[in-house]
Amino acid sequence: MGHKWLILALGVTAISASFVAGMYFQHDHARRRLQNLIQKDPYAYYVSPQIYKVFAFFGSPDEADHRMRQIMKYGFPGLDDLRLYSDFVLSYDRRNRVAHWVCEHLQADSIRSKRLRQGRRHFQADMSVPSNFRSELTDYQRSGFDRGHLAAAGNHHLQQNHCQDTFFLTNIAPQIGKGFNSGAWNKLEIYVRSLVNRFGSVYVCTGPLYKPKQKANGKFGVEYDMIGLNMVAVPTHFFKVIMVESNHHLGKPYMEGYVLPNAPIPNGLALRSFLCDIREIEHYAGLRFFDGLRRSDLFGSNYPHESQVFRDFG
Amino acid sequence: MGHKWLILALGVTAISASFVAGMYFQHDHARRRLQNLIQKDPYAYYVSPQIYKVFAFFGSPDEADHRMRQIMKYGFPGLDDLRLYSDFVLSYDRRNRVAHWVCEHLQADSIRSKRLRQGRRHFQADMSVPSNFRSELTDYQRSGFDRGHLAAAGNHHLQQNHCQDTFFLTNIAPQIGKGFNSGAWNKLEIYVRSLVNRFGSVYVCTGPLYKPKQKANGKFGVEYDMIGLNMVAVPTHFFKVIMVESNHHLGKPYMEGYVLPNAPIPNGLALRSFLCDIREIEHYAGLRFFDGLRRSDLFGSNYPHESQVFRDFG
Repeated sequence: MGHKWLILALGVTAISASFVAGMYFQHDHARRRLQNLIQKDPYAYYVSPQIYKVFAFFGSPDEADHRMRQIMKYGFPGLDDLRLYSDFVLSYDRRNRVAHWVCEHLQADSIRSKRLRQGRRHFQADMSVPSNFRSELTDYQRSGFDRGHLAAAGNHHLQQNHCQDTFFLTNIAPQIGKGFNSGAWNKLEIYVRSLVNRFGSVYVCTGPLYKPKQKANGKFGVEYDMIGLNMVAVPTHFFKVIMVESNHHLGKPYMEGYVLPNAPIPNGLALRSFLCDIREIEHYAGLRFFDGLRRSDLFGSNYPHESQVFRDFG
Repeated sequence: MGHKWLILALGVTAISASFVAGMYFQHDHARRRLQNLIQKDPYAYYVSPQIYKVFAFFGSPDEADHRMRQIMKYGFPGLDDLRLYSDFVLSYDRRNRVAHWVCEHLQADSIRSKRLRQGRRHFQADMSVPSNFRSELTDYQRSGFDRGHLAAAGNHHLQQNHCQDTFFLTNIAPQIGKGFNSGAWNKLEIYVRSLVNRFGSVYVCTGPLYKPKQKANGKFGVEYDMIGLNMVAVPTHFFKVIMVESNHHLGKPYMEGYVLPNAPIPNGLALRSFLCDIREIEHYAGLRFFDGLRRSDLFGSNYPHESQVFRDFG
């Protein structure tokens, strides 16, 4: 009789173990497919913390280190029409036919490689945008405006397609050429790359502003032009919010925000005269930058001179 | 020996069954928690078809009939800052401090009940919007503009909180009072309710436009005012896109779009003179309405007169 009981006990154990194994199999299967989805779809990535909670049955989710996760480490500035490119993430403004924001994560590797700079690039419309909301090459022709990059082409040299992606018109906005795109804006891009070379890991968020201004009658209003048949907005200003990660373990990051008018800017003007409070940029753009970070620690009186950034931070 | 084999066979069967049961248990457990999340979070709801694919192991997902699912049956016009209220869904424009759009699903029940109309309503700021992007009661004071409803208060009488929710400032925009909010706009709201009474099931999407216009120099530009300390945009126009479901099984729906200027509109002007091509509204708003439906079937030359809508459609 003891023999029978042993078999029964073994049986029950096997059945229980099998039940748990079945649960685990299903859990693991779904998790792997979910991982796959999250790497490609920005909205799935955005809701993934809650989706993981739903699964929190056999412990914490594994956190694969995909590109979107790296770029969006500190959160999404906004959630309108999110688009993942090979080396940056973008939110597209379908009303203005210009991006709301473009986020990049820059490391020394991506700006250093000279080898890939030879290949010819060409601007192109992004056909994944529905035609009713798409900007086309013809919109910029004879408009008097440059096709200005939001994510700079010079920041994405690690792979051929990284740089080519920056030439999609979703990453382009009408900019004044002389004194802006080839002037102060270019200087700002070079400054960002010098930060990357010095500190190794820099997050940049770039976008347009349509800033209200006081009118003759004392009231405030927004006013901007539209170009081309598709009505592409000409932003009044452009912003760049820059966040430099510290080299030290647990070191605090450093953050700066710039707002430049879309106008010819005299060559002599120092970039730092365009520094702007980040909350003010957020207010006019309707966005939130690097939301995970406490503002008071970061931005303010810290570094009035560029040289101090390079000397004192790290 | 046959006895032993029988026990073994039974054992293997039980173990296998248990494995499958374990899988099913885990599957079902996760599914129920997912259902819960999807009913409350518009972004989770938006990605849910893909999430369900991840789970598509034991057949199709069950489709609980929650409110968001009913209202958003024909898709999201846009995805910026989605907000679920008790009887409507809204996308908030943090840059303009006014909604992008508000979607409602109206049925005879919600507009009929008189009992709840007694309760006093009050306008209030929506504290769930971060302060930097929130419009406040003070912004409208002495501005010269009415606090105009996007989702009409008169459409939400089924429960006390349904109507009160329409008074959140996220659902409000600065409107010209005389000749608009109390004039043509009000007539349009009454017309929508007459469609509900006649046909039973009507989807409405309402929002502001900031329409470009040709300037003196021939170029196109956008121009609108901002009111209050928080800079609340005064839309140049408002739109309503209306979709009436057919009473007949497999009957085609009927769709109409209206664009009214935010200005005093002479009393004599017929509402139908403000009919507008839906693709044009989409172009200026940067939105897509009832995306699941083929346009060519719906809007066009069908019903030039209001009376025809009521006579011929159904």
